[in-house]
Amino acid sequence: MTLRFQVIGQAGAARVGQLETPHGVVETPAFFPVGTQATVKTLTPDDLQAVGAQGILANTYHLFLRPGADLVEELGGLHSFMGWPHPIMTDSGGYQAFSLGLALEHGVGKIAKMFPGNAEAPTRPTRKRLARIGEDGVQFSSHLDGSQHLLTPETSIKVQQQLGADLILAFDECTSPLSDLGYTRAAMERTHRWAGRCLDTWAADQQGLYGIVQGGAYHDLREQSGRFIGALPFFGLAIGGSLGRSKDDMHDVLDWTIPLLPEDKPRHLLGIGEPRDLFTCVERGIDTFDCVAPTRLARHGGLYTASGRLNIRKAIYRDDPAPIEEGCACQTCQGFSRAYLRHLFVADEILGYRLATVHNLHFILTLMARLRQSIVDGTFVEVKREFLAHDR
Amino acid sequence: MTLRFQVIGQAGAARVGQLETPHGVVETPAFFPVGTQATVKTLTPDDLQAVGAQGILANTYHLFLRPGADLVEELGGLHSFMGWPHPIMTDSGGYQAFSLGLALEHGVGKIAKMFPGNAEAPTRPTRKRLARIGEDGVQFSSHLDGSQHLLTPETSIKVQQQLGADLILAFDECTSPLSDLGYTRAAMERTHRWAGRCLDTWAADQQGLYGIVQGGAYHDLREQSGRFIGALPFFGLAIGGSLGRSKDDMHDVLDWTIPLLPEDKPRHLLGIGEPRDLFTCVERGIDTFDCVAPTRLARHGGLYTASGRLNIRKAIYRDDPAPIEEGCACQTCQGFSRAYLRHLFVADEILGYRLATVHNLHFILTLMARLRQSIVDGTFVEVKREFLAHDR
Repeated sequence: MTLRFQVIGQAGAARVGQLETPHGVVETPAFFPVGTQATVKTLTPDDLQAVGAQGILANTYHLFLRPGADLVEELGGLHSFMGWPHPIMTDSGGYQAFSLGLALEHGVGKIAKMFPGNAEAPTRPTRKRLARIGEDGVQFSSHLDGSQHLLTPETSIKVQQQLGADLILAFDECTSPLSDLGYTRAAMERTHRWAGRCLDTWAADQQGLYGIVQGGAYHDLREQSGRFIGALPFFGLAIGGSLGRSKDDMHDVLDWTIPLLPEDKPRHLLGIGEPRDLFTCVERGIDTFDCVAPTRLARHGGLYTASGRLNIRKAIYRDDPAPIEEGCACQTCQGFSRAYLRHLFVADEILGYRLATVHNLHFILTLMARLRQSIVDGTFVEVKREFLAHDR
Repeated sequence: MTLRFQVIGQAGAARVGQLETPHGVVETPAFFPVGTQATVKTLTPDDLQAVGAQGILANTYHLFLRPGADLVEELGGLHSFMGWPHPIMTDSGGYQAFSLGLALEHGVGKIAKMFPGNAEAPTRPTRKRLARIGEDGVQFSSHLDGSQHLLTPETSIKVQQQLGADLILAFDECTSPLSDLGYTRAAMERTHRWAGRCLDTWAADQQGLYGIVQGGAYHDLREQSGRFIGALPFFGLAIGGSLGRSKDDMHDVLDWTIPLLPEDKPRHLLGIGEPRDLFTCVERGIDTFDCVAPTRLARHGGLYTASGRLNIRKAIYRDDPAPIEEGCACQTCQGFSRAYLRHLFVADEILGYRLATVHNLHFILTLMARLRQSIVDGTFVEVKREFLAHDR
């Protein structure tokens, strides 16, 4: 089994590297499309390869509940189960424990999107939490059938061993952007204690385990967590939890944290990125990303172009014979007009969601390739400036 | 423009032929997958070619309402709009007028599936009709927004000209399996009058127009309609409307009708078939078919195999590592297990509907190729016997 990370080029804090895994090499910086339920929605593994995916991320919590880790293991692990022979990362379930707990209660996600003029108003209606956190782990009610389950650092790692991903994540406690300093500190300290239990359970020769830095948007806590997690013998480091209330807050979190992490280990940013985030976070030293945005947006008709996002459902595209983006080499742009795509969306046809997903992933993954090349070429700053100038 | 049909081999009434169209040759007997809204649900044109589709059928009524025939014409016609460069057939909207009219009122489809022990009970709850038929045409309320529209023989043909299919159908009045002799005769006579109006509107050098034989499951009427429609200068002939209350009734209708149709014109059977129907109808002289069954069933988890249909949602497939069918060359069976497919269906993942559609169409289209070869080889009777013996 090969598990190794090498930085092979740098431009400021931005870096290109090679992440070797038992299922192949990931050229970094890299973006992992999300396949929550062992499928990147609408696409086959062949499609994923065609759009340039090197690896994907699947969700431990979802697969633990359905179809179950025992079943996936019995069928040869995730790679075999879903027919994806390339690298896979699994998250730990920590974020879903947050989604079912504090996130429901606070009505927020990773970044609290506040209503203008009401700094305390949450983004979504609040609901009763479905998860309770204790020292041992997280007790939660399944979102599928209400059944009760306990996920601990040990069970999370064991489930991830059964799933058989190449890269796995420590079990952590995420906090909400609305959590106060006291709660965020307590959660961070629990995450640090859980980190040791994850390391104790880890089979280091089989999978690359990433520790997760927590601490919300609190400077002191992020530094403390960066130092603590960064010093443990993890394979890689991830930055998780609340990233504050804006993209500026997120950049602050990265600026506080990344300089404290070891240079020679891969760094993953959990649950980010929109196209412009990829530039600003790579610039700060992030190596890998996962995010549902490109695929989820696609299924709602939000399509990336070099001049920003368009919504294909709009009436202006009704008779537009152009592809989503002129010059785009993706299967969708090579074969279909905006007018046809709009028709598929308006008619609620599955092919629309599929063609939109192909385009958005091709866009993001092509952007990542360009971004890697620009670091090698020493043109990262110009490529970033040009991209951000056009991305409205 | 080439529009020509040639019978090149026969075995009893079964025949193999070549149907030349402006967008290529269809080897008959052929099955056209249905792409109601200018998309065979979940698949791209490349997928359709990969499963062996030679042509598809799209629905005039649906496309007339959305996105509109003017728009499709402006964007270069259906072939260009949906990116399918091969033959297309469009129906006339006659069947949808029936679906919104008598079918709603009687709660039936093409074949009235009766509840056992209650020969008069319809298959579905009855509702108020949304279409009214007059001598001029059909006045109907859109199923999308309730807007009022009139479809006449002339507008149906004109809309089909705008859509630009290779093969088009006359506007007809379908009757329900529950319609009495008097109503069925009146509808047939109206269909005969409309046939003349369709022929008058047809541009014979552009598209191949099929007349439609009606007459329900009444022997006299089918003979009368077969003779009348068969004698008109249509490019091809279709058998439409009610096919009775069982597959035996359907076979009777074909046995009454087909001998009265000219030998040298292609014969289309509307809205049929299940795998075994393809054998029994080809045996009676049908050249082409269209049917939503393989694709619709697929989206509900019903998968064809040589030993009958299986429902992939069943718990017995939970941990089944085998493909849907051993030896099947389709993309789905080559890459994925029953266990993975079941997971996708249980998790309501779009990829499941797509992979199931690929398999069912590959099954049907491979069967059609085998069936053609068997007519050429003189083994049709054995191939049919063998297939029916295993298809439970």
